[in-house]
Amino acid sequence: MKAVSYESKHKMAVGSHPKPELKSATDALLRVTTSGICGSDLHMYDGRTGLDKGTVVGHEIMGIIEEVGEGVSSIRPGDRVVLPFNIACGSCFNCHQGNTHACLTMNPESAGAAYGYAGMGPYQGGQAEYVLVPFADFNCLKLPGKEGDEWEDDFLLLSDVFPTGYHAAELANVKPGKTVAIFGAGPVGLLAAHSAMLKGASEVYVVDSIPERLQKAEEFGAIPVDVNDGDPVDQIFALRKKNRPIQESRRPGEEKMAGVDCVIDAVGYQARDDNAPSQEKPMQVLENCLRLVNPTGHVGIIGVYLAPDPGAKDKESKQGVFSFPVAKLFDKALTVGSGQAPVKRYNEYLRDLIVNGRAKPSKIVSHHISIDAAPEAYDKFDKRIDGYTKVLIRFGESKKSKASAA
Amino acid sequence: MKAVSYESKHKMAVGSHPKPELKSATDALLRVTTSGICGSDLHMYDGRTGLDKGTVVGHEIMGIIEEVGEGVSSIRPGDRVVLPFNIACGSCFNCHQGNTHACLTMNPESAGAAYGYAGMGPYQGGQAEYVLVPFADFNCLKLPGKEGDEWEDDFLLLSDVFPTGYHAAELANVKPGKTVAIFGAGPVGLLAAHSAMLKGASEVYVVDSIPERLQKAEEFGAIPVDVNDGDPVDQIFALRKKNRPIQESRRPGEEKMAGVDCVIDAVGYQARDDNAPSQEKPMQVLENCLRLVNPTGHVGIIGVYLAPDPGAKDKESKQGVFSFPVAKLFDKALTVGSGQAPVKRYNEYLRDLIVNGRAKPSKIVSHHISIDAAPEAYDKFDKRIDGYTKVLIRFGESKKSKASAA
Amino acid sequence: MKAVSYESKHKMAVGSHPKPELKSATDALLRVTTSGICGSDLHMYDGRTGLDKGTVVGHEIMGIIEEVGEGVSSIRPGDRVVLPFNIACGSCFNCHQGNTHACLTMNPESAGAAYGYAGMGPYQGGQAEYVLVPFADFNCLKLPGKEGDEWEDDFLLLSDVFPTGYHAAELANVKPGKTVAIFGAGPVGLLAAHSAMLKGASEVYVVDSIPERLQKAEEFGAIPVDVNDGDPVDQIFALRKKNRPIQESRRPGEEKMAGVDCVIDAVGYQARDDNAPSQEKPMQVLENCLRLVNPTGHVGIIGVYLAPDPGAKDKESKQGVFSFPVAKLFDKALTVGSGQAPVKRYNEYLRDLIVNGRAKPSKIVSHHISIDAAPEAYDKFDKRIDGYTKVLIRFGESKKSKASAA
Amino acid sequence: MKAVSYESKHKMAVGSHPKPELKSATDALLRVTTSGICGSDLHMYDGRTGLDKGTVVGHEIMGIIEEVGEGVSSIRPGDRVVLPFNIACGSCFNCHQGNTHACLTMNPESAGAAYGYAGMGPYQGGQAEYVLVPFADFNCLKLPGKEGDEWEDDFLLLSDVFPTGYHAAELANVKPGKTVAIFGAGPVGLLAAHSAMLKGASEVYVVDSIPERLQKAEEFGAIPVDVNDGDPVDQIFALRKKNRPIQESRRPGEEKMAGVDCVIDAVGYQARDDNAPSQEKPMQVLENCLRLVNPTGHVGIIGVYLAPDPGAKDKESKQGVFSFPVAKLFDKALTVGSGQAPVKRYNEYLRDLIVNGRAKPSKIVSHHISIDAAPEAYDKFDKRIDGYTKVLIRFGESKKSKASAA
Repeated sequence: MKAVSYESKHKMAVGSHPKPELKSATDALLRVTTSGICGSDLHMYDGRTGLDKGTVVGHEIMGIIEEVGEGVSSIRPGDRVVLPFNIACGSCFNCHQGNTHACLTMNPESAGAAYGYAGMGPYQGGQAEYVLVPFADFNCLKLPGKEGDEWEDDFLLLSDVFPTGYHAAELANVKPGKTVAIFGAGPVGLLAAHSAMLKGASEVYVVDSIPERLQKAEEFGAIPVDVNDGDPVDQIFALRKKNRPIQESRRPGEEKMAGVDCVIDAVGYQARDDNAPSQEKPMQVLENCLRLVNPTGHVGIIGVYLAPDPGAKDKESKQGVFSFPVAKLFDKALTVGSGQAPVKRYNEYLRDLIVNGRAKPSKIVSHHISIDAAPEAYDKFDKRIDGYTKVLIRFGESKKSKASAA
Repeated sequence: MKAVSYESKHKMAVGSHPKPELKSATDALLRVTTSGICGSDLHMYDGRTGLDKGTVVGHEIMGIIEEVGEGVSSIRPGDRVVLPFNIACGSCFNCHQGNTHACLTMNPESAGAAYGYAGMGPYQGGQAEYVLVPFADFNCLKLPGKEGDEWEDDFLLLSDVFPTGYHAAELANVKPGKTVAIFGAGPVGLLAAHSAMLKGASEVYVVDSIPERLQKAEEFGAIPVDVNDGDPVDQIFALRKKNRPIQESRRPGEEKMAGVDCVIDAVGYQARDDNAPSQEKPMQVLENCLRLVNPTGHVGIIGVYLAPDPGAKDKESKQGVFSFPVAKLFDKALTVGSGQAPVKRYNEYLRDLIVNGRAKPSKIVSHHISIDAAPEAYDKFDKRIDGYTKVLIRFGESKKSKASAA
Repeated sequence: MKAVSYESKHKMAVGSHPKPELKSATDALLRVTTSGICGSDLHMYDGRTGLDKGTVVGHEIMGIIEEVGEGVSSIRPGDRVVLPFNIACGSCFNCHQGNTHACLTMNPESAGAAYGYAGMGPYQGGQAEYVLVPFADFNCLKLPGKEGDEWEDDFLLLSDVFPTGYHAAELANVKPGKTVAIFGAGPVGLLAAHSAMLKGASEVYVVDSIPERLQKAEEFGAIPVDVNDGDPVDQIFALRKKNRPIQESRRPGEEKMAGVDCVIDAVGYQARDDNAPSQEKPMQVLENCLRLVNPTGHVGIIGVYLAPDPGAKDKESKQGVFSFPVAKLFDKALTVGSGQAPVKRYNEYLRDLIVNGRAKPSKIVSHHISIDAAPEAYDKFDKRIDGYTKVLIRFGESKKSKASAA
Repeated sequence: MKAVSYESKHKMAVGSHPKPELKSATDALLRVTTSGICGSDLHMYDGRTGLDKGTVVGHEIMGIIEEVGEGVSSIRPGDRVVLPFNIACGSCFNCHQGNTHACLTMNPESAGAAYGYAGMGPYQGGQAEYVLVPFADFNCLKLPGKEGDEWEDDFLLLSDVFPTGYHAAELANVKPGKTVAIFGAGPVGLLAAHSAMLKGASEVYVVDSIPERLQKAEEFGAIPVDVNDGDPVDQIFALRKKNRPIQESRRPGEEKMAGVDCVIDAVGYQARDDNAPSQEKPMQVLENCLRLVNPTGHVGIIGVYLAPDPGAKDKESKQGVFSFPVAKLFDKALTVGSGQAPVKRYNEYLRDLIVNGRAKPSKIVSHHISIDAAPEAYDKFDKRIDGYTKVLIRFGESKKSKASAA
């Protein structure tokens, strides 16, 4: 079968790989119909992880079940399903508590497993014609329809970025009426904005420097903040100050809540310096978050902080250790939530929001390609050029390569 | 000053009453600009409570602060404010835990106080030109703007029915992606629907028999269910069964969740028999709720169940005791939440949703009247004729009486 | 193999049954070392359910794994395990949300399955030398030790009554410093008391009429209330009034909180009339609960309410419909939680409390018997004579029959 | 009146100060009977804050109400009360949400006010014969008894360290059956251990280097870990590994949870280097916490991190910015909670645990002194000599100075 594999820094290859076979009674074999390229794949592409050469990548996967083991009872051949990027056994201590992002049994090295990802266990990825699905009853989310196009893009995003954006909103404790700021308008940041709106936030600010992304944020009902226009934290303070009804309804002391209740870091350790965008400044976003958030507020860290990082510039950074404003965290009495999303905790609810017309995550999809175009797409996505925001690989009948109409 | 008072069953009077004066250092005096007639006022109007003759009624109140006691520090004369219908001291055990609906100090008879309401303490109501506000720092919600019309109706609804509808959604544990059914499309039911949508529900069904109300439900994004078209529970089961993508995404066993996750009783003890609408059947709505709700689901009871009820037909009903399907409650492993809303827990967030354009509760307002028209409005509202859904009394500059354009 | 089966009202038999065999790749076969007789087994014994003649009963089961299917990966032959009474698939919507008491796939008739129980699916029970365990990875809780006696009784109680008592405390929202009253000092009520103390309650009252049970309650740190001494609700009000430091620390209005914050019904539909103990009065306990609980308080219903009940005395009762004080529920703004316990949500934590010496549920065990003594034990337990509170059947090396020393 | 005031680094003075007078209708005047010296007072004593010379210090205060303003309705002269160290208005947005540690109106400089503390507003402290209490209805916790000694020490600790220790356990999400490690066995760490046990933790480890403190930890049921015996994290891993029943009950993969579920930093920015105890190493404790905590675990930061810190050694540290293992936070998917305790959220429940004999925080009290001995006590407490762990100043009839018998 055809698949995309990691070869070396800045090199992904499309080649022939053996079609996977069932190994356990609880496995299923999935014929992939669509697979996404994730922003987190770029960490591997950039050589910022220790991924083995030749690994088939891709953890955003949907398709049609082709075969199931004899211990699989709730999923049948022909079922259209999307997979959480986390591979989970469903029965360990963490899984049954809903923490499938920290499954104890699927990754011999640490807690939490995924398809085709550095440090996440020995699993081939899904930017491939077929993928093996462990514990299929637990890991498959059943979808309506067969191979038609309806919601194909929306559903694919249930594998990672929609639940991940939603999890960010959970980590930041977004609730009806709260104010929210999201740093980063990549796919996760945008869908964090979509999620914050779905959860009833009263004001959602989205910070980025790329016009197309800021425009998408606005389409989701958020207020765009362009880093090119100056310090984004100061901009948000100023925007809130200009909000006349908010100012007029303030009682004495409420000017101390002039920031926002909930902040989300949707960028991670490859953040750019606000004042020198060509340079990385790993703590730029978290510093902004802690300046902007109100006392008793909440910080959600969904942007990835990875260690060891062979590409970092100093010894501490290589270990993921950074200068962090601990006194401000304490002084403001904040909470922080962090880490990968437990996709299965949310994906049924998010699917139902899609099919009832209340959520439309596919607004973020910028490109559909065939698998052969994957290496070029990695390159352009990595360089943030030609509007590459979210690229989906279509298999089978949908072998067209095109920029999306959306 | 002019005020509306309860005289006897089916008789409200507009007359002259003494203007209230500050009694405590923590009081404020409010000049009322708008006051609402609440569905719960009808229980008194119908002689179904033990309210004293001559009591000034009205617990939905907003206006401009005219005077404050010397112990008031955060609210000033000239502030535009809306009052929670609950009167709360802010410092007792229940208040500081957020349970202002059960304030321990303001009502000598029981927990929880309100303006102008039977059994809720010795307070005159706010269908009057002025009202005395105890513990003004705690009880006033500051609003933007002065006396202009902008949001006047939306803000008035922050006194009771919007937070009450929202509380219903909280009691029923509505969360993003969940399915919800609301019985009763009066003001509270409609704003429960609005709240459920704001909280991200995937499907919201609203049951009633009055076409105008069902239409309002649809305007809030809900799915109307007309009792005149047959058993409402059966209708909702059928509607969900016709939802093709929901059916197609079902796995084995999920047909056991063919009802909804969250049900809300927004009717209460004066419910009508579905099969004989001219007759009361106090348990009609709760029976429907327990039939419709899914296993592990949640029931929110916001419709009022009052005892003693002098108008009930038998001894048990007079005490608010009814035949209830306890075994079904246990068998389905449900939770039930009930009681009045603690308005202050929500009103700042809901105000901010209004001023940011995300909530528009005033869609439910059907009539604006002058105080002199109040007795007639009570009569028509009680009879549910001429489209009377939500009537607001305007004072001062807004003395026009008209059906709303909305 | 030997097993206990239901034959007819008031008749359990010990007989020979076929040893179960693995049917699915995810099954395991358990050799039982101890099995309990549960108070809920008495509903079947009393002919108050529709259980089929010949069904092997028993849902409190622990033992040693003898064989596993090829799809089982985390549990091995030789493992000492205890089973939750609920049989759950682990991968359906309810299971992965932690609601294993409402598993959608294991019981064709409704949500939720169990071993050897009326209406809970086609599973043979565990008052038998062997039992088949579906989805063994998910359903087995691994225990330390092999077949020794250490904690054998404590661990057996992890199958049902300890997690069930704990769940009662969760349903009633017990938290540190809260006051709690538990009606019924059977095994579940006693372990609800133990759980409430573990959760930090400040005062725990336990109501019953049997001296030995009240004495056990006291051993767990609770305050016993004997129904024979008068109305139990009045007694608790009086006891709290005599608590001098509590009275002296009251502020104005706090006399409205003279009841308790959390009430637990650990009796169910076979409740006795407080004033005529020889007669059933199904709502006696819930009426007491609603009288005693404070405004904004919480009611946990863990006692079983079953329908249809062929033994009930009137048509409504046969359907589990009873006269319930709905107005009081609303007036006090209560929450109610109900239903069977999702054992797996708690059992690891409770096991760890046992092995660290912090919990000792086995204090409630009154008798150890061999399987041959089971019919007699059912009879005495049903009649509440000879101190029968909690009877455990020992298999294998522990074939002694005796009253416990504890 | 006599009071203790801050004069300069390492110098507290006892002198004569004017007796405070009521300034607002909502004030009360308290005659102090006992006042504590808090570990956080040492930050000021050490010259590590910007406190003004001459400020009366002390934020742990209890006594008898002498006079109340005319706007005070629930507290009367003669009432025995203890004050939360946080001064809160009760009616601002943060207060009514339970966040009294971030009251918006009482401190002109920032959110959150306290008696006699640097940066916490213009309030004189309570190491004095009298103290003025703003918003007395909200801030006074009523106590049983008058001036007798019963529970005097226990109740004094309700002002800060007991609720603060309890809040630490909340921040770290301690729940029944969970494993907990607390770094620091000062008063807050010890009462965090007491709280963790009250909340039902299965294993509580307490790390310190002072034998008397470790012994107190053991008295509360915790497992002491002496830093002098080697790396404390390694010690706890080893202790858990030696716990035979825990090891034997592990399933595959559970060795990844070999640390603890909940970690508490009860030390703060003046932490000592584990390997060189004479030197400060501000991140020592947080580094330990992040190494020890399990994936999906919880970190509670109750130890103070203050900025600006004039005594810090480099520019970043002066601003409270430290090298923090962000990648580990993300990789383990942790939550962090931090900041001062909102005392009023807990103090009624904790009082009731004391009067019902379930909590005994006064076990930590090491010394009772007269006010004249305060300067010497500060010196010895700062040097951690002569067993100084918790010093209480007794006023009035209790003018004895002695080491506690406890």
